[in-house]
Amino acid sequence: MNFLNEAANRYPTAISFASGRPAESFFSLERWLSAVPLFIDHMARENGFSVALAEKRLAQYGPTAGIIEALIAEQLRIDERIECEPERIIVTAGCQEALSLLIPALCRAPGDVILARNPTYIGATGVADFAGIEIVPVEPLAGEDWAHTLTRLAQELRRAGKTPRGLYLTPEFDNPTGTVLSELERRSIIAGCAEHRIVVLEDNPYGMFRFEGAATPAMAALDDVGCVVYLATYSKTLCPAVRVGAAVVPKRLFGSVGEADRLLAELGERKSFVTVNTSQVTQAIVGGVLLKQQCSLGTVIEGPRLHYRRNRDALLRALDLAFGAGHEGVAWNRPEGGFFLSLSLPFEFGRDETAACAREQGVIVMPMTFFTLDETHRKEVRLAFSNTDEGEIEAGVARLARYVDTQSSLVQ
Amino acid sequence: MNFLNEAANRYPTAISFASGRPAESFFSLERWLSAVPLFIDHMARENGFSVALAEKRLAQYGPTAGIIEALIAEQLRIDERIECEPERIIVTAGCQEALSLLIPALCRAPGDVILARNPTYIGATGVADFAGIEIVPVEPLAGEDWAHTLTRLAQELRRAGKTPRGLYLTPEFDNPTGTVLSELERRSIIAGCAEHRIVVLEDNPYGMFRFEGAATPAMAALDDVGCVVYLATYSKTLCPAVRVGAAVVPKRLFGSVGEADRLLAELGERKSFVTVNTSQVTQAIVGGVLLKQQCSLGTVIEGPRLHYRRNRDALLRALDLAFGAGHEGVAWNRPEGGFFLSLSLPFEFGRDETAACAREQGVIVMPMTFFTLDETHRKEVRLAFSNTDEGEIEAGVARLARYVDTQSSLVQ
Repeated sequence: MNFLNEAANRYPTAISFASGRPAESFFSLERWLSAVPLFIDHMARENGFSVALAEKRLAQYGPTAGIIEALIAEQLRIDERIECEPERIIVTAGCQEALSLLIPALCRAPGDVILARNPTYIGATGVADFAGIEIVPVEPLAGEDWAHTLTRLAQELRRAGKTPRGLYLTPEFDNPTGTVLSELERRSIIAGCAEHRIVVLEDNPYGMFRFEGAATPAMAALDDVGCVVYLATYSKTLCPAVRVGAAVVPKRLFGSVGEADRLLAELGERKSFVTVNTSQVTQAIVGGVLLKQQCSLGTVIEGPRLHYRRNRDALLRALDLAFGAGHEGVAWNRPEGGFFLSLSLPFEFGRDETAACAREQGVIVMPMTFFTLDETHRKEVRLAFSNTDEGEIEAGVARLARYVDTQSSLVQ
Repeated sequence: MNFLNEAANRYPTAISFASGRPAESFFSLERWLSAVPLFIDHMARENGFSVALAEKRLAQYGPTAGIIEALIAEQLRIDERIECEPERIIVTAGCQEALSLLIPALCRAPGDVILARNPTYIGATGVADFAGIEIVPVEPLAGEDWAHTLTRLAQELRRAGKTPRGLYLTPEFDNPTGTVLSELERRSIIAGCAEHRIVVLEDNPYGMFRFEGAATPAMAALDDVGCVVYLATYSKTLCPAVRVGAAVVPKRLFGSVGEADRLLAELGERKSFVTVNTSQVTQAIVGGVLLKQQCSLGTVIEGPRLHYRRNRDALLRALDLAFGAGHEGVAWNRPEGGFFLSLSLPFEFGRDETAACAREQGVIVMPMTFFTLDETHRKEVRLAFSNTDEGEIEAGVARLARYVDTQSSLVQ
């Protein structure tokens, strides 16, 4: 990422499609902080404390698993249609901490590996790399369903002395591609993972930002065998600075209550040696907002959701205008939500092209190879449309088109 | 720790010397939260932002190393007499995260081990255990100075194919023993570590809570060779719920700027895959309080410091009264600060004795074997006097004395 920051610093007037940050114009930190007393009152009521004692206890060390699990369970029920017991939730310092606990907890023996769709979010790759755990790309062959893909891959891996323990994915508005897995695909993944005892790590930061079309049920909601650990985060629905996320462990893991309990206990023990417990101040911010909103963030995210939709529309319009006709090899998807779109180009787009594009045309995009686990996707880039606006998008795509036209004419 | 919680739950009227939590009566969460706007103003001024933009940026993702390093550097200069550049500081989600980043960053090759004084804080042991890194107890033989101990141990380890990479310790009011390393000992450790390229992890949560006597300089302040990484925390000076700590990397590591830079970069990269960045809300709380206090926490900790001193005095008085005469084999140290005192008993005190003491006499203490890396210290217990009061201390020690008398008469 350093060279992207460098590009941004070196060409400060460049328009950037690189940052997948949430739109900060909608952050209401002051208002959200003012919800803390609401949570303190709630904590006092729930525990039979005076308000003064609740305030002291909030500032103290607290339970490793957190103090807002019941509110999170309720929010997941209303907003994501996921039913879970508060006792199965562990609150983490952002979803990233949940990943950093889960991946090594699942892969404890030599040869244990994590599967991931390719390309994939680098937060998962980074955890695996630092823990010395191999991360293996998984992709169905043409016409193959996911359950068969997983069986084929599991068999291949076993022959090489490896065991797949987890499958990391973002089924809804994937980072980096913006794609969605259909219900059929999700069910097929669950079947394959259940058969091979692979835990699904379902990351869902963007699910609430759907612009149109019917929502596909979360994998955790479809999971009837107990193989999905759901990862929640408030970084996009509220703001990243709260650093509050959660992992939801199923009641039975592959049918076993004992195995699920052991995973939950291990996550808690690992967490106690990483962050002790998630800041109770920031838990109280999230908890206070949830109390104020009757445990649904639908109203809170309405503004940003419309903003992201306007940006997505502007991006699609600009791409149609710039590449609509006579641009062989240029194609893109039309995401129904989220922060990202992926664009295919007629030539390879790597580090050098990123630098050249920033220098020559004043626009920064993210090469898809930053997210790939192998040598594929070399002609693709990720366009983030979350933390920008329609004017920038229009101008940025026009600049990108000039770069693409120049390169294409050189290639021909 | 589970069985201690169990004991506390099973005997709710038991007096506890087990918890080393800070005294919560001094927490002023509401007041500390009200310092956030002060930090936002400061952030606006420093960056040339409007206050509104600073508030948005505070809620956003931020630099991995943090946003309050300059204020922390100034506080360390005033309160701990440690000179460091803000660029050498990485802000962490409590000191525990710093440990969880540092120990695996230092021990990357098979056979790399961490040294620790024995007994030692379990937060360090837990990190090493989960990372599969051996933690080796280090203790000078009678009459041996630390530099010789380290040389002897390093040679022994090398013969076994092992390399000591780090030495974890709390030189000032150690947890669990309450002891202090003299300046001579500190200098000898630095010399030994410099010779064998061992990084000192200097943990200092209790240093500001000195009740009497002259302070010994921090090892980071004595470090003229660049081998000490200093670990700071605001969990005891402010409150645990902020989850803000920091690691301070020396400018040169064993004389090498490049090596220090590489360690700092590695810590940052590891952190980005654990917590991304420390909550900027809680950084703003700490930053705001530091601004309000002209970067010294001397005034803030004066109340709790006096409270801990009163408790320490009450504990010493009660111990003198209970065990002052005719109790062979009972001894204790007289800590000049901190939260802990260690008590030697005439018999082994383990898990069973803890349970029996809670059940029969209604007092809970912490067996020292919870903190040991080997089979020593079996007749010692840790008494925490931080989050209790004089009345409880008096009654608790009287109860403990009854247990000791009963056991001693059984033994004889």
